[in-house]
Amino acid sequence: MKGKAAVFVKKGIPMEIVEYPLTPVGPGSILVKVNRANICGSDVHVWKGEFPWGGADQPRIIGHEMVGTVYELGAGVTTDSAGEPLKVGDRVTYLYFFPCGRCYACLHGQPQACPNTMARLGQTSTPPPHFIGAFAEYYYVQPGQYVYKVPDEIPDDMAAPANCALSQVLYGFHKTGINVGDTVVIQGAGGLGINAIAVAREMGAGNIIVIEQHPDRIKLAKAFGADHIIDINQNPTPRERISALRKLTKGRGADVVAELTGIPAVSREGIGMTRMGGKYLWIGNIRGGQNVEIDPSAVVLGNRTIVGVCTYEPWALSSALGFLRRNKDKYPFGNILSQPFKLEEINTAFELSAQGKVTRATIVM
Amino acid sequence: MKGKAAVFVKKGIPMEIVEYPLTPVGPGSILVKVNRANICGSDVHVWKGEFPWGGADQPRIIGHEMVGTVYELGAGVTTDSAGEPLKVGDRVTYLYFFPCGRCYACLHGQPQACPNTMARLGQTSTPPPHFIGAFAEYYYVQPGQYVYKVPDEIPDDMAAPANCALSQVLYGFHKTGINVGDTVVIQGAGGLGINAIAVAREMGAGNIIVIEQHPDRIKLAKAFGADHIIDINQNPTPRERISALRKLTKGRGADVVAELTGIPAVSREGIGMTRMGGKYLWIGNIRGGQNVEIDPSAVVLGNRTIVGVCTYEPWALSSALGFLRRNKDKYPFGNILSQPFKLEEINTAFELSAQGKVTRATIVM
Amino acid sequence: MKGKAAVFVKKGIPMEIVEYPLTPVGPGSILVKVNRANICGSDVHVWKGEFPWGGADQPRIIGHEMVGTVYELGAGVTTDSAGEPLKVGDRVTYLYFFPCGRCYACLHGQPQACPNTMARLGQTSTPPPHFIGAFAEYYYVQPGQYVYKVPDEIPDDMAAPANCALSQVLYGFHKTGINVGDTVVIQGAGGLGINAIAVAREMGAGNIIVIEQHPDRIKLAKAFGADHIIDINQNPTPRERISALRKLTKGRGADVVAELTGIPAVSREGIGMTRMGGKYLWIGNIRGGQNVEIDPSAVVLGNRTIVGVCTYEPWALSSALGFLRRNKDKYPFGNILSQPFKLEEINTAFELSAQGKVTRATIVM
Amino acid sequence: MKGKAAVFVKKGIPMEIVEYPLTPVGPGSILVKVNRANICGSDVHVWKGEFPWGGADQPRIIGHEMVGTVYELGAGVTTDSAGEPLKVGDRVTYLYFFPCGRCYACLHGQPQACPNTMARLGQTSTPPPHFIGAFAEYYYVQPGQYVYKVPDEIPDDMAAPANCALSQVLYGFHKTGINVGDTVVIQGAGGLGINAIAVAREMGAGNIIVIEQHPDRIKLAKAFGADHIIDINQNPTPRERISALRKLTKGRGADVVAELTGIPAVSREGIGMTRMGGKYLWIGNIRGGQNVEIDPSAVVLGNRTIVGVCTYEPWALSSALGFLRRNKDKYPFGNILSQPFKLEEINTAFELSAQGKVTRATIVM
Repeated sequence: MKGKAAVFVKKGIPMEIVEYPLTPVGPGSILVKVNRANICGSDVHVWKGEFPWGGADQPRIIGHEMVGTVYELGAGVTTDSAGEPLKVGDRVTYLYFFPCGRCYACLHGQPQACPNTMARLGQTSTPPPHFIGAFAEYYYVQPGQYVYKVPDEIPDDMAAPANCALSQVLYGFHKTGINVGDTVVIQGAGGLGINAIAVAREMGAGNIIVIEQHPDRIKLAKAFGADHIIDINQNPTPRERISALRKLTKGRGADVVAELTGIPAVSREGIGMTRMGGKYLWIGNIRGGQNVEIDPSAVVLGNRTIVGVCTYEPWALSSALGFLRRNKDKYPFGNILSQPFKLEEINTAFELSAQGKVTRATIVM
Repeated sequence: MKGKAAVFVKKGIPMEIVEYPLTPVGPGSILVKVNRANICGSDVHVWKGEFPWGGADQPRIIGHEMVGTVYELGAGVTTDSAGEPLKVGDRVTYLYFFPCGRCYACLHGQPQACPNTMARLGQTSTPPPHFIGAFAEYYYVQPGQYVYKVPDEIPDDMAAPANCALSQVLYGFHKTGINVGDTVVIQGAGGLGINAIAVAREMGAGNIIVIEQHPDRIKLAKAFGADHIIDINQNPTPRERISALRKLTKGRGADVVAELTGIPAVSREGIGMTRMGGKYLWIGNIRGGQNVEIDPSAVVLGNRTIVGVCTYEPWALSSALGFLRRNKDKYPFGNILSQPFKLEEINTAFELSAQGKVTRATIVM
Repeated sequence: MKGKAAVFVKKGIPMEIVEYPLTPVGPGSILVKVNRANICGSDVHVWKGEFPWGGADQPRIIGHEMVGTVYELGAGVTTDSAGEPLKVGDRVTYLYFFPCGRCYACLHGQPQACPNTMARLGQTSTPPPHFIGAFAEYYYVQPGQYVYKVPDEIPDDMAAPANCALSQVLYGFHKTGINVGDTVVIQGAGGLGINAIAVAREMGAGNIIVIEQHPDRIKLAKAFGADHIIDINQNPTPRERISALRKLTKGRGADVVAELTGIPAVSREGIGMTRMGGKYLWIGNIRGGQNVEIDPSAVVLGNRTIVGVCTYEPWALSSALGFLRRNKDKYPFGNILSQPFKLEEINTAFELSAQGKVTRATIVM
Repeated sequence: MKGKAAVFVKKGIPMEIVEYPLTPVGPGSILVKVNRANICGSDVHVWKGEFPWGGADQPRIIGHEMVGTVYELGAGVTTDSAGEPLKVGDRVTYLYFFPCGRCYACLHGQPQACPNTMARLGQTSTPPPHFIGAFAEYYYVQPGQYVYKVPDEIPDDMAAPANCALSQVLYGFHKTGINVGDTVVIQGAGGLGINAIAVAREMGAGNIIVIEQHPDRIKLAKAFGADHIIDINQNPTPRERISALRKLTKGRGADVVAELTGIPAVSREGIGMTRMGGKYLWIGNIRGGQNVEIDPSAVVLGNRTIVGVCTYEPWALSSALGFLRRNKDKYPFGNILSQPFKLEEINTAFELSAQGKVTRATIVM
């Protein structure tokens, strides 16, 4: 038996659709039939040769925002990572990174800071079992990899991005902390930012202020319940935006400001929007080699804290699924439409994504 | 009755010795006879017109690292801020900043982040009671200002800097957190850095690594018990120093890195010395308007946290005094000699301090 | 000018309506005309001679759940404790306890643990300004006492209990911590418990389970959005209730269990409802001299934490007012009807409250 | 090839020395030759039929305080759990409990609260590989079990108890938190308590007060640097001891009180020794079915927190070994002499331990 996969060879070359044989499902593994896989902004970075974790030139199957269906359970697998019974036909999602469990960070309860996770993300797909990325008909969940059953109430469209944007912002705000009534600024209402509005609200934020430029995103941010928008078109300079923010916060700035844009330059502005004693959450800036000028005294004299967060602890995905189950009708998740493409159309889907002509492309198998 | 004070008029003009009348000691106030007052690095900044908190051109008495003797207690004052009985003749030190107790930060248990503290630091000395800085024969502790009795065991020489460097690093490490056995890097073995060695050790640090250039400071750092020195003379580039640090930490970097130099450029290097999931503590960079280039992805992908700390919560000074009482013979605090000057010699003392010809000048009244 | 007050003399004797002269409003003080004052459960305890903080036999004005209107501002008072402009005619509420600001706990950022607060709660009303309790026509807010303006959107009925039940549970859950999606058990749906449902939900609780017996309270708990009720009538023993709880939590118990009943016996059951590694929040048990048998091994082997909370940090009342402003239409606060009594009817109001014949009596001036 | 083991059959019956064959060392496993194994207080409980984790009647090899030497490494094992290279002949110690890694607690970063750990502690030794307890010539470290290399500087005598008492108190104080200068009360200077003195000191405790009765333990506590002893012989009642403690703490009580006795009755006294806003750490009370009467209002009105801790996160053992390496000459660990017995003398060793005639028995292979 065989399955198709889109293989990324290197920057500038179209991905190839390759057929690989399905190898036997080993003990502790799970063979998953992929339902759909989204093209995440970080996938576009990889495609452009801007892979933050190295390994740019290894042929491999990329993609990680995925939902699939259990096709075969390896020996010994009877539950998901949360202990829920698992059987063929159940829908699942998983952590696309692999904390090693044995490094200093893992042993200290910080799997999200495992240095070996990053190394493993650049894996080649050449040797069996081949299927280690989401843009393919199948996916092998490996022994020890965290996998969670998707509740029936959550449609595929909503489940696919759960292991990326939603889990990431949920974990980011968990690490930073939000107190009931806090003012939270969200820099950028893209995929991360829109999820961040819902998560911040459910964690008790009293005043959510979104900084954004694109009319569609502004509209979506309002639909998700942002209390205020600072429109970049009307406030074109950082100085004006900081001033607008201060007007909305009795002059003091926000308790928590979250960077969800991937643009280094917004960081300086974001720190300036944080109140004295407040916290700045860095999530989006995962591309290496890009600098921003910071005035350290703004952090020191302001007693501010900056929290960098990338990936998450395993519970966050489980928590994200519960979050969707509880809140799917409360927020217009359905408005974040994915535009479907076939696996064979993946190169077109990436081009349109890179050009910003489609906001969220999804490969439906 | 009158008292002398050194009045800073503006940058580039010698301080003037002025005599002011002593006004009556109001209810809740304390009149203190100053024993000695050190010239702190931040005083030199003010003298150079680099005052980080504004108010550079207001004539005033500067100075804050001080120990004095209670000369007169205002009505109602029977104890220090920790409830210890207080009487004329007792030696005291105090918080030189004034959290307002009514702002958002103060109400949220963050007096160190009070924005009004900073505004009050630029006060003029023209109106009575005049004596609001340390370089003077007297000092008025105002109602509500935090003041602590100095234990008999601690000599003046050791007590004077307690309300600045020692309290600051003690609070900084408290906010950042040190776990038993942690590797702690100390960037710079000046006044802050030397105190930081002792504090980090007493909080459980297992491996203390100091980055320093000056032979005298390296010698002092060793005497204070630093486990390793990375000598800048032998490792002239950040790359070499980061490499040296990694060799000392099994390749992974330090749990906590503390910036205690005031030099923005070391920050990038310091973040690079922090292990994945580790913490970077910014204390020294209090001068505004100086930038450093940071790569946000180093913080994001590394799940690192940056903690800015300036001033401290009131308990920290009380804790610092207890720290000195317990540890004064354990660490060679006596080796950090202050060079004494008379109040009339203050301009000379500042010039020599600015030129680095004296490491710690103290004005003895 | 004079004002009436209900004076509690001692247990078993009816409160007396006394007229006191209004003394001049000193600097930093505020004279407040009381709009209404609720009879809290702890007031009933005092009335029965079960005052937990001593001073049972000092004649005084009791009552603390109050909203009033600024009648006169003392010299220097221009804002409330959050810096909002304050003028005659504004409605206000306040912290009814007075952290001293100078004890070890206060200096360590724990005003809620100030031992001097308790001592001051037993004050006599004999000396001027007399009006130091809520069951009176006037109330003197003293210098340094925390006072907050009540937003216009919040009616008196909803504002009166804000400084007690709502602030208390908001602070309690803040101390304990609730993560997004947590299962929270609420023991008792009285005044504290009903507020706790709303607060837990807004902090992200995913599954709120209420343990209650009275049909009216069960109905109200459901209206406030409890996900599950464990009805004591149907589960009369602790064993049955713990079993019912485990069924609702996949066998593992709740992340957070909050005791809001004042009944010591429920504590053992509540600890048994907490998952391994979970937290038990003690709020209601403020009456001294009542014991409960605990098996320490249940706490030790279960790695459980018990958090005792009484009173709160000053920000909590400000946060509670914001909470009401944002959520007053989301939860049926209007269903928690207060039954109004005149000041002259206060003895009747207390008797009916003690007999449980009125759930929330309020004295309307 | 065969090895000897002491098999505990059931309460009241002498342990039997049995010879089992050594089965092949599977992938990921390690066969360890036991150097020595101490008789811990909890072993004596098991021996008496008071096993707190169930499984009292399953024949098995007990014992867990152990140091051994790598005899054979299974396929794929090249390092210890901290990534240190591991080879035959290296000395090792290990976590004697097995967090499952898949339960709710484990997924939430609380392996110490894993409910499956406890279940596995009652394992029978009947099926191969037999050697799953410390009182035997060999021990099989199983795949995924945490194992750490013992630094050369630490002698066997000091290494054997590291995975129990030292790791436990180190983790307990980590969870509870100790601030620089804190007053820490240690209830009981047995094995746990003596280690607790050293750990509390290294974490910054400024004032360590030990409550103890036995002259030998009092002497040892002093040798370990306790600042004060409250001798139970001179203060026979809880009231007197609390009073003595208050005298040593300016009337306010201790910041942290740690229960290290295993006696439920001391808990009430310990809570009474904690300052308002302070923390009580329960470690010793691991025996189920024993109650203590607590007054909940003491916890509630005092804003106190109670922290139950049993077992620890994996890093704690690694940290404990580093702690011994750094501090072995600073504290008189050598004074805690173990009395050696042969494996064949194990029943005698248990009897003497149970009778208190030997303070720390060790089985030397």
